[in-house]
Amino acid sequence: MRIGMLCGGVGGARAALALCENLPADSLTFLVNTGDDFRHLGLEIWPDWDTVVYTLGGLIETDRGWGRQDEGTKAMEEFSRLQAPDWFHLGDRDLALHVFRTWALEQGCPAHQVAAQIADRLGVKARVLRLTQSSLATEFVLKDGQRMDFQTWFVRHQGKPAVAQVKSGDGEAVTPGVLETIASSDLLLIAPSNPYLSILPMLGVPPVAEAVKSRQGPTWAVSPLLGGKAVKGPLDALLSELSPHARGQQAIVGVYSGWAQNLFLPADEMDGLNSADVVPRPCRTWLNTPQRRADFVADIMAAWKAL
Amino acid sequence: MRIGMLCGGVGGARAALALCENLPADSLTFLVNTGDDFRHLGLEIWPDWDTVVYTLGGLIETDRGWGRQDEGTKAMEEFSRLQAPDWFHLGDRDLALHVFRTWALEQGCPAHQVAAQIADRLGVKARVLRLTQSSLATEFVLKDGQRMDFQTWFVRHQGKPAVAQVKSGDGEAVTPGVLETIASSDLLLIAPSNPYLSILPMLGVPPVAEAVKSRQGPTWAVSPLLGGKAVKGPLDALLSELSPHARGQQAIVGVYSGWAQNLFLPADEMDGLNSADVVPRPCRTWLNTPQRRADFVADIMAAWKAL
Repeated sequence: MRIGMLCGGVGGARAALALCENLPADSLTFLVNTGDDFRHLGLEIWPDWDTVVYTLGGLIETDRGWGRQDEGTKAMEEFSRLQAPDWFHLGDRDLALHVFRTWALEQGCPAHQVAAQIADRLGVKARVLRLTQSSLATEFVLKDGQRMDFQTWFVRHQGKPAVAQVKSGDGEAVTPGVLETIASSDLLLIAPSNPYLSILPMLGVPPVAEAVKSRQGPTWAVSPLLGGKAVKGPLDALLSELSPHARGQQAIVGVYSGWAQNLFLPADEMDGLNSADVVPRPCRTWLNTPQRRADFVADIMAAWKAL
Repeated sequence: MRIGMLCGGVGGARAALALCENLPADSLTFLVNTGDDFRHLGLEIWPDWDTVVYTLGGLIETDRGWGRQDEGTKAMEEFSRLQAPDWFHLGDRDLALHVFRTWALEQGCPAHQVAAQIADRLGVKARVLRLTQSSLATEFVLKDGQRMDFQTWFVRHQGKPAVAQVKSGDGEAVTPGVLETIASSDLLLIAPSNPYLSILPMLGVPPVAEAVKSRQGPTWAVSPLLGGKAVKGPLDALLSELSPHARGQQAIVGVYSGWAQNLFLPADEMDGLNSADVVPRPCRTWLNTPQRRADFVADIMAAWKAL
């Protein structure tokens, strides 16, 4: 059974880890959001892809959910000393990856080959594909009319400015293997990632949208909310700004209407949800321990077997 | 009294430090070899200039003579893990400088402005000018006829392959201020650097050579040999390969014939030197402690006053 999963950052990485810990790696392909990818200090940075790959390679700083274990701050101290832009944190190990990647791309190696090489060298067994070869360059139209790119909004302004609209590129070349994965996976999952920042930017790319809409097998989404709230990050604020007529899990149902047939969420959060096309399904969606991740996969697989 | 000094790496940096510790910073301009400057992993690296600036900024790892104090190896561990070229060591702090510099140059900032900004932010008071705006790209013709670039020979092959000839570029644009410094300095010094790798590449640039030859004031060289031997590095081997008819200090006299009027060297190493145009002068040229550096400057200044 082949599984594909659309992933964003921390939530996507933990769901990907759950699958990798409990299913054969060669049955898994992760399709990772490129909306946050950007250039900083001349370096090519892929935050979501890196988080998934660091997580699957066992290199992630687990408590924080991003960045590397045993990471250092010496380079960052120097950027500050040099008065370089230092609003985006670059750990010493992380920096080396960005330097290597930027160099490999400058040498003319296509992005998907660079990605495959890095994932392999970091010990990742499953396929982790960036959705597109270049960034979808997510940006925000703020309530005050200003436009702001993703990193400026998320990191520099800590996700605080009120958002009226999220816009991402839709003309970027889709990475080889992505459309095939969507078409041929027995099950396509949507990870418990931020829908506005991680999932909808991917579904906004026309050939990706078409592949999802026209695939034969089921597409199931996993809710990123626990107890009706985001585990972390700016999702709660975005939901209230961008989905004013529904709250919590009902808003997530609304977002995935037309995309997924099922929404997996904690059993005690299913009451009162209504949707014409998205059926709520009970699932243990906490992903912070190996046992909880095994429970999550068991619930998904039980639903699959009950089809 | 204005002093200019042609400098290479470690020897040049220590002589520059000696002057800075004992003379007013605004009277000093250092002209630094660009023959070793190169691109590595997409990064612009200026080894000699960095060594001078790190030294004058009080940031150098003193025992080793290059690289940073309190330096880290995490980025390097990642380069190895990623199977990136890892024959050239990049400390975590050092890496940040290269990233910042490369980015600043890519932004279109001219190299001499980038250099001035970095030196200022690292706390360097004297002017430290790269000789040329781009690398002189020193390379070697080996005894076996092969050609090899500087870093490959020096770092990858540890300076071992026998050298028949050292070649450097001579058409690069000279950095603003360099020719003026050579012309207007009351005293032009040649630091106790490796003449073949650091000094002759600079003197091989025609406008620089012409400025040195036509200047009014004296040009004095400081021998890099102590006890007839190089303090460190590949100079002894190069001297025997490239100056087969003279040994030790006599070979240094030969190298600077036509360029300098005096060669400063330890008093007990002056016996038997002969030259038509370079006059040996006694000088305490050990530079490894503040007291020794003060003695060195005192000897140079005493010679200046005796003119």
